[in-house]
Amino acid sequence: SNMGELCVHSVLVTGANRGLGLGFVQHFLRMPKPPQGGRPKPPQWIFATCRDPKGQRAQELKDLASKHPNLVIIALEVANPASIKAAAAKVAEHLGGSGLNLLINNAGMVKPKTLDSETLEDMTETYTTNTAGPLLMGQAFLPLLKKAAQGSLGSGLSCSKAAIINISSIGGSIASSFGWDMMQVTSYRCSKAALNMLSKCQSLAYREHGVLCVALHPGWVQTEQRCPAGHMPPVTVDDSVQGMLKVLSSLSEKETGTFLDWEGNVIPW
Amino acid sequence: SNMGELCVHSVLVTGANRGLGLGFVQHFLRMPKPPQGGRPKPPQWIFATCRDPKGQRAQELKDLASKHPNLVIIALEVANPASIKAAAAKVAEHLGGSGLNLLINNAGMVKPKTLDSETLEDMTETYTTNTAGPLLMGQAFLPLLKKAAQGSLGSGLSCSKAAIINISSIGGSIASSFGWDMMQVTSYRCSKAALNMLSKCQSLAYREHGVLCVALHPGWVQTEQRCPAGHMPPVTVDDSVQGMLKVLSSLSEKETGTFLDWEGNVIPW
Repeated sequence: SNMGELCVHSVLVTGANRGLGLGFVQHFLRMPKPPQGGRPKPPQWIFATCRDPKGQRAQELKDLASKHPNLVIIALEVANPASIKAAAAKVAEHLGGSGLNLLINNAGMVKPKTLDSETLEDMTETYTTNTAGPLLMGQAFLPLLKKAAQGSLGSGLSCSKAAIINISSIGGSIASSFGWDMMQVTSYRCSKAALNMLSKCQSLAYREHGVLCVALHPGWVQTEQRCPAGHMPPVTVDDSVQGMLKVLSSLSEKETGTFLDWEGNVIPW
Repeated sequence: SNMGELCVHSVLVTGANRGLGLGFVQHFLRMPKPPQGGRPKPPQWIFATCRDPKGQRAQELKDLASKHPNLVIIALEVANPASIKAAAAKVAEHLGGSGLNLLINNAGMVKPKTLDSETLEDMTETYTTNTAGPLLMGQAFLPLLKKAAQGSLGSGLSCSKAAIINISSIGGSIASSFGWDMMQVTSYRCSKAALNMLSKCQSLAYREHGVLCVALHPGWVQTEQRCPAGHMPPVTVDDSVQGMLKVLSSLSEKETGTFLDWEGNVIPW
C-alpha cells in the first residue's frame, strides 16, 4: 500500500488562486523535506493555474511563488481549449522530458439558483466550466500523464504514478439529493453528476495508459462558493485538503472510476 | 393501481417526427376507442413538436395529422427558450382552460465520438439539447401541468394526472458503463447522467404541484441514432413505446424521481 506515501514529482492544480485550489498548493509546498538520501516529498514542480495570474485575486499565489521556486503560476481558462493547449505546452517545457503525475481539476463554479430560475445560460456556463473543462484538461494533459505512468516503476495504478482527480461534489450525487432544501442549484448538480460520469469514462479509457481517475467530494467546505446565507459549512479548507491528500495516497487500481469523499467513504452515484 | 389505465386528456411529445417520438404519437392515436359511455382512451389532444414541421423529415407526421384532428403539430426547438415559450402559448390556446397531463421530453441527440475526439462544441451542443432542453420545457409547461394536476380527482401522483417523462438512456447510468467497448460517446453519456439528475431535481421541486417526474430508458432501440456499425439493436420502436406506456400507466408517487427502463426495471444511477 502507498498509504501516507504520496510521492509526486509534479502536480497541476486548476483554480489555484483561492479556496481548495490554493489549499492544495499550500499543502504541497508544506510537505516535509525528507531526510538526506530519502525520496523528495514536496513535488519538484507545482503548477498552479488560474484565469488571471496578474489580477488582484492571485496575489496570495504570487506571494507564495516568490518564495518557492518549485511553484509555477500559469494562466489557464478551463473553458477555453486554446488556453488549455498553451498551458500544456508551458508545463511540458518546464518538465523537460519527464511527465506529469497528478492533474487536479479543481476549478469550478456554482450559480445560486432555484430550479425555476435556472436559465440556458446558467446551464451552459456551469457545464462548460465544471464538466467540459475537465474533459479538455484530460485530453490535453494525457500525453504528460502517460509519460509519467510509463516512467514509473511497478504495475498497477496510483496517484504517485499518474492520476486525474476531478473535484466533484455530493451535490452531484443523484441518489442522495444532499442539501436540496437549502440549495436547489440544479445547473450545478447536473454539471457535477455529469462530471462523475466523465470521471468514470476517463477511468475506463485511461486505465490502459496507467492513469488512475476518481471523482472526489471535498466535504462541505468553508469557501466563498459554498456558503448559502446563514449556513457555515463545517469543514475548513485545511482539513478538507489534508483529508483528500490522505485519500489520494491510499488509492490503487481498485478505486479508479469511483466517487469518494474527503474521508475516503464511497458516495452513491 | 392505474395499471393499464393511462387516461390522458392531453399529451405533448418532443422530437415527434421520427423514431421514438413518432412511435409515441402513433401509439396514442391507436389507443382503442372506448365503449359508449366509457372514459375516452385516446387523448383529446396530442401535441407533436419538431424543429421543422415544414421539412421533408416531418412528412409522416403531417400525413398523420391530416387524418387525425386530435393531432396538432407545433414547431419547437428545445435548445431555444423563445421557441419553447411560443409553443407553450400555442398549446395553452388549444387547451382552452384545461391543463396538460403528460410532457414527454423525447428530443435528443448523440454524436458518435471517442473520449479522445470529443470537443467543447460536442459537449455544449449535446448538453443543450439533451439536458438544458428538458429543464426549459419543464419550466415553460409547469403552469399547464399544475393546472392538469389541480383539475384531477384524488390524491397522489400519476401519469394520467400530470407528469414529466424524460427519455434518458442506460448510457447515462454511471454505475453500469453499458456498452462502453462499443460506444464511448462521452458527451452523450454525460448529458444523460445530467438529465437523470435533472429528473430527480424536477421530482423534488414539482411533487408539491402534483407532477410526477421520471427518467426512462427506452431500451436499445432500432432508431437512426442508436446504431453503431454492425450492431442491430434488439428492440423495435413499437415494442419500446408499448413497454414504456405500460410502465407509465403503472407509476405512482412511489416512483417519482426514479430511473426505469421500458420494462419497468430500476436502473442504477
